Amino acid sequence: MEIIKPTLLLDPFKCQRNLQNMIDKANLYNLNFRPHFKTHQSKNIANWFRDKGVDKITVSSIDMAEYFIDDGWDDITIAFPFNRLEIDKLIALNQRAKINILIVDVDSLDILKMRLTEKIGFYIKIDTGYHRSGIEFDQFDQIDKILFTSELIPQLEFKGFLTHSGNSYNVESPMQLEEIHKDTLIKMINLKNKYSTILPNVTISIGDTPCCKMMTDFEGVDEIRPGNFIFHDLMQQRIGSCAVDEIAVAVACPIVQINESRCEFVLYGGAAHLSKESVKDQMGEQYFGKVVDLFPYGWMDPYPETYLRSLSQEHGIVKTTPQLISRFKIGDVLGVLPVHSCLTANLMKHYHTLDNKVFDHFAANS
Amino acid sequence: MEIIKPTLLLDPFKCQRNLQNMIDKANLYNLNFRPHFKTHQSKNIANWFRDKGVDKITVSSIDMAEYFIDDGWDDITIAFPFNRLEIDKLIALNQRAKINILIVDVDSLDILKMRLTEKIGFYIKIDTGYHRSGIEFDQFDQIDKILFTSELIPQLEFKGFLTHSGNSYNVESPMQLEEIHKDTLIKMINLKNKYSTILPNVTISIGDTPCCKMMTDFEGVDEIRPGNFIFHDLMQQRIGSCAVDEIAVAVACPIVQINESRCEFVLYGGAAHLSKESVKDQMGEQYFGKVVDLFPYGWMDPYPETYLRSLSQEHGIVKTTPQLISRFKIGDVLGVLPVHSCLTANLMKHYHTLDNKVFDHFAANS
Repeated sequence: MEIIKPTLLLDPFKCQRNLQNMIDKANLYNLNFRPHFKTHQSKNIANWFRDKGVDKITVSSIDMAEYFIDDGWDDITIAFPFNRLEIDKLIALNQRAKINILIVDVDSLDILKMRLTEKIGFYIKIDTGYHRSGIEFDQFDQIDKILFTSELIPQLEFKGFLTHSGNSYNVESPMQLEEIHKDTLIKMINLKNKYSTILPNVTISIGDTPCCKMMTDFEGVDEIRPGNFIFHDLMQQRIGSCAVDEIAVAVACPIVQINESRCEFVLYGGAAHLSKESVKDQMGEQYFGKVVDLFPYGWMDPYPETYLRSLSQEHGIVKTTPQLISRFKIGDVLGVLPVHSCLTANLMKHYHTLDNKVFDHFAANS
Repeated sequence: MEIIKPTLLLDPFKCQRNLQNMIDKANLYNLNFRPHFKTHQSKNIANWFRDKGVDKITVSSIDMAEYFIDDGWDDITIAFPFNRLEIDKLIALNQRAKINILIVDVDSLDILKMRLTEKIGFYIKIDTGYHRSGIEFDQFDQIDKILFTSELIPQLEFKGFLTHSGNSYNVESPMQLEEIHKDTLIKMINLKNKYSTILPNVTISIGDTPCCKMMTDFEGVDEIRPGNFIFHDLMQQRIGSCAVDEIAVAVACPIVQINESRCEFVLYGGAAHLSKESVKDQMGEQYFGKVVDLFPYGWMDPYPETYLRSLSQEHGIVKTTPQLISRFKIGDVLGVLPVHSCLTANLMKHYHTLDNKVFDHFAANS
């Protein structure tokens, strides 16, 4: 493959290894594996999951659910608070696949009662500390209201409690991650215990890649929904939930200018390709990517002290060291490991695999 | 138009007014107007420019040039350092339109000499202080080398010096902006004077919206290439280069959850729709958008003390005040004024105008 402009490279070996590791982990702890497909959003990558026996998935929008249903997936949790404005589309999809939705308020049940023609599964989304969405773990009055109301709606089938501990992305140490995970489990299992006498089939579903990857206590958990693990990225690496050689995507970017005196070079590759997601280095300085050499079989570890420090729409500015700057020249194509692979893939819209296939992304279809 | 999910709204009246104002300004100061189309990237919006007599444009990539050439535009500056890896595509486009490219190093001239079959225009990209790309304004040895080498290459036609004072986006006051503008002019006019004895047709082209919009001294400048002015956004508003009612785009987002106790609500609308570009409020706190009420004819001023404070892939969290929280309810559709309209439009891929048209975006074609 000849690369002449920003191109999203996918290492199928790393991807498959990441996938197998997570499947093994789910099996080891006897967990239902319902991977989140919002990271890759690709029917081609989804086939790797299918080949390994995965048949239940998670998505983050109704449109994404439709994309995968069109490709034959038929057991899907839409892990986003139910958007009543999309009820027509939900009804249509629910006739084609087994769908679960997330409920965060009792009033939303009205429209489901009135409009749904067939059974749909639902989870109550629980906020265990991330404070993004969901009902707070101890708001039992709200949970009770939803459960009692839903009992009277024959189309609604309660599945259990679902959470996403997205606060795990902000940890500074594995110990902090463990605290978040333990705290999540305590809160979720408390709910399970509280309601399991009246609802014996209640399940617990947890989500984030860092906890699913690094933790070893899943007592009481029924299902995991990690997504990012399939690619990983620098944010995961910073947390410690992946090694750098587990990162399975890189954006190939041509060098278009070298500034030797500033130890900088300019990449064709900017916010329109990588997204403006950033993390901080040990000195507290923000960066948007790390730089790797590209080989036909993939890439090696990133260059030391070499960071993508700023991004505009199409430009990326890399700062490196006086020792390294002479290694780079205009016309070279370098790889950039992304900070947040989900957003990068969403912008790039296609994957070019190292074995020369072009893979689809949902974003190219919308 | 029924809005059920994140939808990019475009106010054609504001757009046309923004356009006319900039055309008037260019005329007033007798400046060649070569607007940057990377902001809207839309052949439909481009037609408004065409209708007002604009016939020369700026783009930020070869692919974007092709998109507009396909739509009949035939005088295009590709305002990005020449990427030698795309020489084949450049040659093909240069046969279909009058193209100008940016040169930042002398070595790139070799490949142009060898490969170009027809004349192409070029600017030397000058760095007047932004430190993104270009040759520093006082590196006369490098500029000389490019000019002397290009003299011997019949396909190359030197147009002049081009700069983009992107540092104008970081100013904290109009006075700072004026300093940057003055400094840019001094440096650019110095170049013009220095080389105009041997190159009498040398021109000066400057780029950024804040300076083009707010400054009144363009003595010695030949061309302006603003782009963002067509939409504006909260970053421009923060700088002071637009009023909030000049912002011509908003992302319509449904509310999917209300958290009264935290004075927060959850929007269906996240980093995948708005981008992760942020600015800071007066307290130094980061935000990703401001919230407006939507009416059939557009939107009003943003709600006070109401900010889009965090974004994940599909979720946006808005914090508001105890006084206002009761105004919002699940199922309402609100507008979000973007921080960086170029990146938002690139993610959204289509525009829905207030008069019910759907406009194309280059990103939907790539």
